[in-house]
Amino acid sequence: MFKALEFIDDKLKFIDQTKLPVVEEYIISDNYERIAEAIERLEIRGAPAIGVAAAYALAFSVKDHNENLKDKFEIAYKRLAATRPTAVNLFWALNEIKNLFDINNPETQYQILIEKAKAVHLDDIEKCDNIGKNGLQIFQKKSVVLTHCNAGALATGGEGTAVNVIKEAFKNGLVEFVYVDETRPLFQGSRLTAFELEKSGIPFSIITDSTAAFVMQQKKIDLVVTGADRIAANGDSANKIGTYGLAVLCKHHNIPFYIAAPTSTIDSKCKSGGEIKIELRGKEEIIKFKNEQISNGNYEVYSPAFDVTPAELINGIITEEKLHKPEFKF
Amino acid sequence: MFKALEFIDDKLKFIDQTKLPVVEEYIISDNYERIAEAIERLEIRGAPAIGVAAAYALAFSVKDHNENLKDKFEIAYKRLAATRPTAVNLFWALNEIKNLFDINNPETQYQILIEKAKAVHLDDIEKCDNIGKNGLQIFQKKSVVLTHCNAGALATGGEGTAVNVIKEAFKNGLVEFVYVDETRPLFQGSRLTAFELEKSGIPFSIITDSTAAFVMQQKKIDLVVTGADRIAANGDSANKIGTYGLAVLCKHHNIPFYIAAPTSTIDSKCKSGGEIKIELRGKEEIIKFKNEQISNGNYEVYSPAFDVTPAELINGIITEEKLHKPEFKF
Repeated sequence: MFKALEFIDDKLKFIDQTKLPVVEEYIISDNYERIAEAIERLEIRGAPAIGVAAAYALAFSVKDHNENLKDKFEIAYKRLAATRPTAVNLFWALNEIKNLFDINNPETQYQILIEKAKAVHLDDIEKCDNIGKNGLQIFQKKSVVLTHCNAGALATGGEGTAVNVIKEAFKNGLVEFVYVDETRPLFQGSRLTAFELEKSGIPFSIITDSTAAFVMQQKKIDLVVTGADRIAANGDSANKIGTYGLAVLCKHHNIPFYIAAPTSTIDSKCKSGGEIKIELRGKEEIIKFKNEQISNGNYEVYSPAFDVTPAELINGIITEEKLHKPEFKF
Repeated sequence: MFKALEFIDDKLKFIDQTKLPVVEEYIISDNYERIAEAIERLEIRGAPAIGVAAAYALAFSVKDHNENLKDKFEIAYKRLAATRPTAVNLFWALNEIKNLFDINNPETQYQILIEKAKAVHLDDIEKCDNIGKNGLQIFQKKSVVLTHCNAGALATGGEGTAVNVIKEAFKNGLVEFVYVDETRPLFQGSRLTAFELEKSGIPFSIITDSTAAFVMQQKKIDLVVTGADRIAANGDSANKIGTYGLAVLCKHHNIPFYIAAPTSTIDSKCKSGGEIKIELRGKEEIIKFKNEQISNGNYEVYSPAFDVTPAELINGIITEEKLHKPEFKF
């Protein structure tokens, strides 16, 4: 086993995800600037994981208390908030720390803030654990599972969401094998989910994204479970591009399709998926891989980062509270 | 425009497909060994293109006629036949040349064989032209088209099959835009089809394979057309992995799905798709890209090269003879 994020000896120890799975390298730091850089460089990624790391980093900014505590704290806050400005969890976690900052208590400040950061972390660990346990209900028998992207320990402060459903079921003898979509363009499946499953001793094969339909046709898949980035009040779920296609393929092959995500992912103000704005990514992720040119940089590329799976294609949404069944009303 | 294969000044001029689209480089040779190497290295690929190139190469083996003509011819035949032993077109084309070889006519031998090679080439050009023309019937209006892999001039002796349907329709004002699946793992879409569409001035965007469903959901696709590697008597069609998934997505979104291929692709002895054996590829195509490691070489990979689309998901099969409509009986 491994821990993607760990508070140890009054420092944050984290795995460098950019090097996975080729190299497994850990970085140990109590320097908020170094952690800010780690978030920017995607050494730490995944919304809950970013939030937890940023909470620790902001607490570290007052670790060596001195006269300019307030200035230092505010500079650190702004620096960390600027790392991934679209990540909602980041601001929530930073504000959890900021709300406890008190200029009148320089001596105890660090202890108060670091305890809060640990609480933010523990809360995420517990949510992941409960998602894993609630997910056991979706297994009717020892199953072959397919997942997409990475909704695992590498994306959260705990053991993950969709990947933790698989891990927990495996521990309970309910997972026989996992097919892992490689997840173009950034290969989070073949790089990160594969790494996690190997660490958990769960047998798996990596497949290209377009092989999923063939594997379903061959009657090899019992169920599909993925994470979500945002869930609308009616259950429509935004997740990594390719998730919607999987859900359509599941319907055609009569395979149940599940989402696993913390309740914080549900945006009740968002009535349906139509209101979710889809981020478009740059062409370089499609045209190059690291230093190797795949295609011509002059060609047009259309690269949405997410798609929206309509609620009617989702058989259940697993949160830390329970397994929500259709029709969804959040 | 460009020509992937051209007989010019008594030599074969061909484009090096391994360097496309980053570098557009042509090789000119009348050395059969050099052409055999080109087929082995995938500088020339695509079943019809391999057949045409091998026919020229075998004729070149007797270009400088001398006393050991028969021995030289037989060595060349064996050398060329060994380049891609699973390619049916290769043997057919080599035998077309071999059948005309006559040891008693050393003086006229080369002229007879090279004329036959040119006839094999011309036949393929004409088939592609007719597939393009017969494909016009699938367009009800100026359309947005999606295609997968490369069934174009880079795979045939002529202008291609599915890609030529698109080119011919574009010339007739019937194509507005093309979405090109990148086609993991070998990127024939983003590398080769993109190159051909650009050369033809047809507007397009490359998408990842798993973006196709999203584009269909957004109501951006009017029809899908792909090539085929083998078509069973009942119309079940084997093609590049990912084709079956596209056909399922088409059905869900009520989008017509077509196959374009020469009649020689139809294997009437093969009753249905269930009899088609699916080639499994090695993991290195999934785990590495050129010199860059994507994932860990120890991880398991499942990489079928093809899938089979059942006839009931196919709205029409375009050959050089006509547009075949369901139910198919070949």
